[in-house]
Amino acid sequence: MATHTVQNLKESKDRYASTFISGSLALPPAKEYLVLTCMDARIDPAAAFGIDLGDAHVIRNAGALAQDALRSIVISQQLLGTQEILLIKHTGCGMLIFQDEDACGVVKQNLGDEAHQELRTRNIQFGPFPNLEKAVEDDVALLKNSKLVSDSIAISGWVYEVETGRVKQIV
Amino acid sequence: MATHTVQNLKESKDRYASTFISGSLALPPAKEYLVLTCMDARIDPAAAFGIDLGDAHVIRNAGALAQDALRSIVISQQLLGTQEILLIKHTGCGMLIFQDEDACGVVKQNLGDEAHQELRTRNIQFGPFPNLEKAVEDDVALLKNSKLVSDSIAISGWVYEVETGRVKQIV
Repeated sequence: MATHTVQNLKESKDRYASTFISGSLALPPAKEYLVLTCMDARIDPAAAFGIDLGDAHVIRNAGALAQDALRSIVISQQLLGTQEILLIKHTGCGMLIFQDEDACGVVKQNLGDEAHQELRTRNIQFGPFPNLEKAVEDDVALLKNSKLVSDSIAISGWVYEVETGRVKQIV
Repeated sequence: MATHTVQNLKESKDRYASTFISGSLALPPAKEYLVLTCMDARIDPAAAFGIDLGDAHVIRNAGALAQDALRSIVISQQLLGTQEILLIKHTGCGMLIFQDEDACGVVKQNLGDEAHQELRTRNIQFGPFPNLEKAVEDDVALLKNSKLVSDSIAISGWVYEVETGRVKQIV
């Protein structure tokens, strides 16, 4: 039996496909940039950041962590030609309100010792941060210092306010 | 001097914020699910998959790789209560058209030996896949077999067609 979520996806795609006219866009992003932002449910990057279909890669993970996005960033730049990175974290981020050891404890309690061990096997660290603007600065610095990001790439760091729909530039 | 990309972001956010009325949405996704899809510029998850603001986490990386998303998935489920995963890869994906060693070679040639070394230090593997539907099946299996994903989580696997705007279920 389809869940409500699956049912919603099926209905939505029929609606979307019925008026879809963008079937011949090229693989490389037309405007040659990438946005790295958080998976947070309150962010709609296309609408909030003005990204038209086909224009930019959008990478999203918990907290918009640069380290976690490096694989995708290298592919975006070295194989698909993007030249600029907008790194956008946001107010009210879940990553501001827990510690790595809290999350590890929850995994151990809810999922058991084998799951806790798998965190180590897979080298997973949750990477929460206590200060939002500093986290933006640190992650922009990580990208600027990484040899995997060419010096020619423009990188800026931003905070999106989930309360107002605005972004402000940090770096 | 602001780049065109930065200028576009500044103009878009003023437009978006001027009609923004969703400033009091809660942090946990209202519909308790997460979508894992690709960073590809031709995908607009909110529109194509019917995700209203606040409803679902959206994780995106090059190829919608499950392994690369596990940190975010654990945070989404164990700390923010999501109960279901839609894994959606897509036709025409860049991950279908290169080999890991090609990408490593490009990094070495364009960015130098230190960058190539950093791939190893950071344990980055690009993770391309030659067969789209098999990749969906494999990644759904990875999530189902991982101890980090509770057995109670519903997981389905899909392919989005960038040519038509449709999705079809694989698993």
